[in-house]
Amino acid sequence: MAAKLELAQNAAGRMVPTTVNGRQQTPYLGVGQYHPHGQKAAPPVCSSNEYPENGDKRVADLETALRNCGLQDGMVISNHHHLRDGDAVALMALQAAAKIGVKDLLWFPSASFPSQKSAIELMEKGVIHHIEGSMNGPLGDYCTQGKMRGMGILRSHGGRWQAIQDGEVHIDIAVIAAPTADPFGNADGSHGKSACGSLGFALADSTYADHVVVVTDSLIPFPCIPWQIQGNNVDYVVEVPSIGDPSKIVSGTTQITRSPDRLRIAEFVARFLRDAGIMRNGFSFQAGAGGIALAFVDYLRRMMKEDGVRARFVRGGSTKYLVELLQDGLTDYILDGQTFDLDGVKSIANDPRHVATSPFTSYNYHGKGNFASMVDAVVLGATEVDVNFNANVVTHSDGRLLHGIGGWQNCLASGCSILALPSFRDRIPVIVDEVTTLTGPGELVDVVATERGIAINPRRQDLLDAVKGSSLPIRPIQDIKAEVERICGGRPARPKRSDRPVAIVKWVDGTVLDTVWQLN
Amino acid sequence: MAAKLELAQNAAGRMVPTTVNGRQQTPYLGVGQYHPHGQKAAPPVCSSNEYPENGDKRVADLETALRNCGLQDGMVISNHHHLRDGDAVALMALQAAAKIGVKDLLWFPSASFPSQKSAIELMEKGVIHHIEGSMNGPLGDYCTQGKMRGMGILRSHGGRWQAIQDGEVHIDIAVIAAPTADPFGNADGSHGKSACGSLGFALADSTYADHVVVVTDSLIPFPCIPWQIQGNNVDYVVEVPSIGDPSKIVSGTTQITRSPDRLRIAEFVARFLRDAGIMRNGFSFQAGAGGIALAFVDYLRRMMKEDGVRARFVRGGSTKYLVELLQDGLTDYILDGQTFDLDGVKSIANDPRHVATSPFTSYNYHGKGNFASMVDAVVLGATEVDVNFNANVVTHSDGRLLHGIGGWQNCLASGCSILALPSFRDRIPVIVDEVTTLTGPGELVDVVATERGIAINPRRQDLLDAVKGSSLPIRPIQDIKAEVERICGGRPARPKRSDRPVAIVKWVDGTVLDTVWQLN
Repeated sequence: MAAKLELAQNAAGRMVPTTVNGRQQTPYLGVGQYHPHGQKAAPPVCSSNEYPENGDKRVADLETALRNCGLQDGMVISNHHHLRDGDAVALMALQAAAKIGVKDLLWFPSASFPSQKSAIELMEKGVIHHIEGSMNGPLGDYCTQGKMRGMGILRSHGGRWQAIQDGEVHIDIAVIAAPTADPFGNADGSHGKSACGSLGFALADSTYADHVVVVTDSLIPFPCIPWQIQGNNVDYVVEVPSIGDPSKIVSGTTQITRSPDRLRIAEFVARFLRDAGIMRNGFSFQAGAGGIALAFVDYLRRMMKEDGVRARFVRGGSTKYLVELLQDGLTDYILDGQTFDLDGVKSIANDPRHVATSPFTSYNYHGKGNFASMVDAVVLGATEVDVNFNANVVTHSDGRLLHGIGGWQNCLASGCSILALPSFRDRIPVIVDEVTTLTGPGELVDVVATERGIAINPRRQDLLDAVKGSSLPIRPIQDIKAEVERICGGRPARPKRSDRPVAIVKWVDGTVLDTVWQLN
Repeated sequence: MAAKLELAQNAAGRMVPTTVNGRQQTPYLGVGQYHPHGQKAAPPVCSSNEYPENGDKRVADLETALRNCGLQDGMVISNHHHLRDGDAVALMALQAAAKIGVKDLLWFPSASFPSQKSAIELMEKGVIHHIEGSMNGPLGDYCTQGKMRGMGILRSHGGRWQAIQDGEVHIDIAVIAAPTADPFGNADGSHGKSACGSLGFALADSTYADHVVVVTDSLIPFPCIPWQIQGNNVDYVVEVPSIGDPSKIVSGTTQITRSPDRLRIAEFVARFLRDAGIMRNGFSFQAGAGGIALAFVDYLRRMMKEDGVRARFVRGGSTKYLVELLQDGLTDYILDGQTFDLDGVKSIANDPRHVATSPFTSYNYHGKGNFASMVDAVVLGATEVDVNFNANVVTHSDGRLLHGIGGWQNCLASGCSILALPSFRDRIPVIVDEVTTLTGPGELVDVVATERGIAINPRRQDLLDAVKGSSLPIRPIQDIKAEVERICGGRPARPKRSDRPVAIVKWVDGTVLDTVWQLN
């Protein structure tokens, strides 16, 4: 990081580093403009003669497993985040590595959470060189302070698959927390005392890593069915007393917002889907686990019932609200990327119509299509959106990096992508002139729904036409922005940032969309 | 084939060509002796921007699909054989290729059947250069007559996965018959008018081929669940009126043998499992769909019931006899590689404990283990077995190549591999001095069960000890052989073969185990 970094302006007008952590980068070229070439990454050919005939791959502990995998300085260790803020395995692995005495690891989680903030100590001690992956909360803050030795690389769920598949990130050792596993390494997330639902985020790791370690607190005899993670890709199995804190792995219940403003937004969005004709027999939608999204599903369900409309599929992150749709016969399937509450976990464990997906099926842009573009409508959040419908989900207006991208970028491929947002938070307007960090290009954001009205992207004349005559408050985004600025007393202050990049935001095709800068 | 082929003697003492179809080969080195190196094959990186956003990959017909895939002279076209002798898709694809006018294709089916014998005409016309894959009946015969331009390569189900995965065979275009599919290319075998159960044999093709075409006669809206073949690997979808003849895809019922001799063999095998202590709580076994195997399952079921024993899993090829075990609570799971009858198809479609597997999970030797070695006992057939327990499943004693290997070689990894055989067929002894074509090394064959007694491989002192005191007719293999020769009037005549290799038999690790010679 001492050497001066070369910057280039990308197709979104953003200045981005051309080399990151020693690897050359392609600046963002525009939606659909980058054409990859070459072959996918290929893990080493193994042989059954090097694995136990009885299929028992258990070793005493994680330290032994990592040693057997040949852990060395500078290696890439990966984890998944299906256990969310309850995960204990990632830190267990990193601490075992510290005990072994290796340095300069690249930690490559699918996301990191506040409970993993002691990774900062491991960075201070030199065990971890830097993190590539979503950094929620303290780790993102640490990164924005410029304290990480390498640059952070933020990728969407699909972008993480793409990076692994395309060989941009070579995982030396994947350590996979498994709520259930057998001694051969087959693993499942939907059963066991630490059940979390789908393990889809770990699938790329298990398929492409040189070495794979499964860590479980619920070992069952072969076969562990379903085997979302296949033992045929696994080197070692480690039993531990607990892989995490169940109360933080899944929330007992996911709460609908009680804020009247947010309920209003949720209702607007549901009515928009109905009035625009998107809510029709055989349609599909995706909504996350935030308070507004949950309320939206609840409103939509009532409208579907009223109008006798049935969806072909709904996309999770699943919650009890999606599960109710399935149980009420209002959808044929839930295609689930991650499972957010206990109802979701119970459903995915028992109902064959509740299907575990992976970022490969749902989000990977470098496949032969993916089904994000087949979802009729998606309801998302954002920290900021600007008058050109560009949106930010990773930093706040003060420039602090506090959130990961998740599937957000990938979802923008949907037929109708809707940002459902309060128009201000803590008296800071959410609609701005230009987003602090560009995470999604405005041409892919179709609708911005706030409690003060709904703005439709002028590129979507079809949607503007579709809701003509609707009683919904459809307004130009500039109007809503002006109203909010009057309420809040002006525009948000610009962040005081240095000219030193501390992280980059990748687009779904692996090009560099924007830069996160160190704060002064 | 005009040039003189160099031969080498392998570790089994067999003479094998060192180059086959222009590719250098490794002669068999002994069980577990070959150590692979290098990386797995890697298909090209694709991009969603080259596929339809709405996920609809349908094209008018197979010819269009093949043209779009860039079909050229000399390419490798693959098919699976889950529709068995009822398949119509493979010939459809080859005839479409003929219509396009390409030559010298390598046809790479997982197996070929008598109903596909018109592939001979396509070989005569030069459209197909040669076949690599199991050749059952007329195509095998054609090969043994030395009429194929290239050499046949016989691989086990696991060996086929290994060859694709290791890059020994690069599939240009995989054409996958699908009993159900959606327009995105997700495909399933367990539903639809041509339902065949698992599509596991096509999984490697779908994953590693450059181009993938799904052909279906039952198109449903996205998503096709389950999606054993994932649309994210598929380029084109073709709808046809019929993918095959359902009456030949699955037999309405699979018949238990009525031959008293064969029933006796089946009973011996079941009693052997019981008396040797293999039949115990939590055990596992595999048996195919032959008349003896079915009768064995029926006997074993009765013994399990009597003794109150429950299996952890049974391996299919599934039939109604395995399904009954599952339904009677005598096994926790069926792990199914292929589905042989209507009861099997119905079960795999509806019972989550009846699990579709692929050669990757069950058989691929170049993985981090596979579960063939975790099966406690397997009951197999053979055309010949010799006094050293070496066995043959591909040729008859007259040297004609009439059968494929199937999963047979892979299954030998089981804890106890049992060949259940009549001691003679058509007055030709089955136990011989030396097998015509070595398909399985004797060190992996544990038991030979005939109607005249059971021979245990002397290497398995543990099994000899285990059945001490049993009332089973345990006899040295030479004794049984001598008795049979007295009945049949001597040893089988040796085949009149030339010194020209027409096919090779691969071992599970990709090395060359034996040669099939042109017959005079």
